[in-house]
Parts: sequence; structure tokens; C-alpha cells
Amino acid sequence: MADHNALPLVILAEKFASLPGIGMKSAQRLAYHVMSMDMHSVEEFSQALLDAKRNVRCCAHCQNLTEREICPICSDESRDHKIICVVESPKDVTAFERTREYNGVYHVLHGLLSPMDNITPDKLRIRELLARLSAGGIEEVIMATNPTVEGDATALYVANLLKPLGVNVSRLAFGLPVGGMLEYADEVTLFKALENRNFM
Amino acid sequence: MADHNALPLVILAEKFASLPGIGMKSAQRLAYHVMSMDMHSVEEFSQALLDAKRNVRCCAHCQNLTEREICPICSDESRDHKIICVVESPKDVTAFERTREYNGVYHVLHGLLSPMDNITPDKLRIRELLARLSAGGIEEVIMATNPTVEGDATALYVANLLKPLGVNVSRLAFGLPVGGMLEYADEVTLFKALENRNFM
Repeated sequence: MADHNALPLVILAEKFASLPGIGMKSAQRLAYHVMSMDMHSVEEFSQALLDAKRNVRCCAHCQNLTEREICPICSDESRDHKIICVVESPKDVTAFERTREYNGVYHVLHGLLSPMDNITPDKLRIRELLARLSAGGIEEVIMATNPTVEGDATALYVANLLKPLGVNVSRLAFGLPVGGMLEYADEVTLFKALENRNFM
Repeated sequence: MADHNALPLVILAEKFASLPGIGMKSAQRLAYHVMSMDMHSVEEFSQALLDAKRNVRCCAHCQNLTEREICPICSDESRDHKIICVVESPKDVTAFERTREYNGVYHVLHGLLSPMDNITPDKLRIRELLARLSAGGIEEVIMATNPTVEGDATALYVANLLKPLGVNVSRLAFGLPVGGMLEYADEVTLFKALENRNFM
């Protein structure tokens, strides 16, 4: 925004533009939108930013984001605490919870191994996962990282650390997405679907 | 976001989702991003929202957004105050300023006439434009609203109000965009380009 623009607007647009997926053009549009909101809504938005950052932390068990010391999933006694689903980020927990089919608990790594970006095992919450396993009582760990190079590498790395502890380690199944069309499936997905076929 | 998510995060995501062009999925991603920002940056963002809303107002002359009573363009004596370019929103002022060719002043309507959305002439800053003209000294008013149904209707409506005041009213030229390709131009644009052709 050129210098004829009001400085507070330029600063606000820069803040929006610093968020992922928001370019300078959209950021400017958002800043103008804030001007058209009433004062009360802007104050609420401003406070929501502070509240989220100040009051949300990682669950002492699963490392998912929560307001409490132990998150609602880890404190839920009706869930199966013998199965841990290992995911990359809190978003993935939300995705699994939406299925309403998974009744175990989670462990959020907060990232995937990526030596190129200097994300080494000590940057992830792997130590905390090992600590949960040493405490005993875990029967299965499901590696539910994305089917990407980093996701597969992380799953393999963690699995190799866990197997010597005598726990069952599994990986999510890969195949055709439900409702997907054969002709649009890429070769690797189709090969995985063929390889992991189930007898009827 | 399901109820296993921390409440402050759900609230923050809802605030982001209330902004134009941001869906619930992106809003959730942005809320998680805020968690990964350092406390200082979040406080700055929070403050920027308040500052923009509290310290920015409409220029008493042109109605553009500014921190001062009179905006830098209206207070610039080197500009030609006899020509007023009428635009829909502050964004359009930025667009004209980028050309570095326009040396007149502006008038921001803050919207376009749209009876369907209940945006009637009294909702726009038309009264303020008429007041500037009554003060005298204006030679030309350029109607620079978008070439859309609402933009054209607003230009026509305002032009009809201004003409009896003995001021020249002009409209932006429509034609092929510079660098554009004939084959991709729509019929109406091509017709306008033909109609408004210039002899060489």
C-alpha cells in the first residue's frame, strides 16, 4: 500500500499478509474489511488472538493443543488408552474425530522429519511418545502421518524406535479414496490399491 | 472445529472465518498458525486491529480512509483540486495512485447503488460530493466506478445530479486492456473498443 494510505491500515494489512496463504492484495482487502466492522467486533477479534495464544498449550500426554493440563480426549476414561494414533498436527486429530469411529487416543508430533528444512527428530515430540510407551500399557501405535515422502520417512523412523519396545506398530491403509474414480487415480495409489487388495 | 478443540482456538477460527473470502478450513489453519507465532507477534497483530479501527477515519473532504482530519492527497497543494475522480472504495484510490499519472483529487463513495441490497443514494457519500461542488472551483468530475451494472448505474445517477451544477462530468474509457489479446476479449469489451476507436 502506497504512502497515501493511513499507516495503521498499512500495518494491519502487513500483519494479515504475514499469515500463510494470504497475499498482499487479500491482506489489503481484509484490512479494509476490518474498517467496516463495528468497534465491538474488532475488539473481540483482537482479544481472541491474545486468548488463543495465552490460554492454549500442549496436553501433557498427547501434545495436542488444549486449554487444560490434560486434554479432553486424554482425560476421557471411556476411550481406549491402549491404542495411540500418531499424527503430524492438531488438524489431523480433528480429521480423525470427524470419522466418529476411532476410540483410542492420539499423539501429536507437531511436524514431520525433514532434514532439508533442518527438522530433525529432536524438533518433534518423539521423546514424549517414547515416555508414554515406557510408562507401559500401550498395545498398538498407529502411524497416521500423511502418505508423502516426509510422512512415510517419519512413520518409518518412529516405527523403528518403537518396535524394540515390543509394541505393535501399524500404518494407515493406502488405496483408492472412497467415491473416487479409477481413471483419475494416480499410478502409485492404484498400485497400492492393487497390492493391498482384500479377498471378498 | 469439534468440541475436543480448545475453546479459544475455536473462537479465533470463527473470527477468521467471519472475514470475507476465508472459509472455515482456512480459518482453522490460520488459528493454528497463530499458535505457532511468538507472543510478541500475536500482541502486535492484536494491537494492529485496534489501532486501525480506532485511529483511521474518513477524510473530511474526499472520504478516503486516513489518520488525519484531511488526508495527504487533499492537503497536497501541488495537486489539481479542480478535478475530482469519483471512485467506489479506498482500494480504487490506491489503484489510481499506482499509475502515477493522475494529479487531481478523489471522492470515495464507499459503495455502489444497489437497490436489491438496499443500498440507496443516501447510504453513499453523494451528499458530501455535492457539498464539495457547491463550494465551487471544480471544473471536472471523472466517474471512475467499475464497468459493472452497479458501477454504471451509480455513475449515471451521480452524473445526472452533477450536470445541472454546470460541471463537466466524464466517464473512464472502456476498451481492450493493454497487453490483452483480442481473441480473449469478451464481446461487450470488443464492441466498446470498436465504438471508441481513435483515429491515428
